[in-house]
Amino acid sequence: MVQYSSTLDSAFTAVADPTRRGILERLGRREATITELAEAFDMTLTGLKKHVHVLETAGLVRTEKVGRVRTCRLGNRRLADESAWIANYHAMLDARLDSLGSFLERTKGDER
Amino acid sequence: MVQYSSTLDSAFTAVADPTRRGILERLGRREATITELAEAFDMTLTGLKKHVHVLETAGLVRTEKVGRVRTCRLGNRRLADESAWIANYHAMLDARLDSLGSFLERTKGDER
Repeated sequence: MVQYSSTLDSAFTAVADPTRRGILERLGRREATITELAEAFDMTLTGLKKHVHVLETAGLVRTEKVGRVRTCRLGNRRLADESAWIANYHAMLDARLDSLGSFLERTKGDER
Repeated sequence: MVQYSSTLDSAFTAVADPTRRGILERLGRREATITELAEAFDMTLTGLKKHVHVLETAGLVRTEKVGRVRTCRLGNRRLADESAWIANYHAMLDARLDSLGSFLERTKGDER
């Protein structure tokens, strides 16, 4: 399993906040300017920009400034590594339950 | 999609750190004491305890103190909601790509 990956760190950190998850869902429907996002989430421009910066660092959002307007779009990262890490974790938990099950079966056999 | 869930917040925060992911993987193999984990991750007891506390708050680890020894085991949460959130996000991205594809197809038709 990938333990020491800085991309996992930044992506999980990015989606650990409800406003940032909301921004991703909002941008999934349509691109938006910083001002539009700030209004949608009832935040100051400064507060909103901080969230966008975290998402941008994680590769989940990209922004483009034309004149005084910065437009945000979804980035190229799809959280595939994060999904894979959780799937591996599930597989490990299942293997552990299976081995516990086998142990209990064997113990039951011994009691007969 | 579940946007404002504090369980998503705490679980994604918990797995956003490489040491905490390492602790989960280690506990997936076998339960361990705080001292054993601190040695395995080359950390102070205080530092290690902070990480375990974050994992415990997220429901991913449970601990039990007998005498002076605190033993850590995996908790009951399986990151199922987190996995579902990422899957929903993928579905949204796919729908967006499909609609972009249809748009390009229609545009190509117009050019003929």
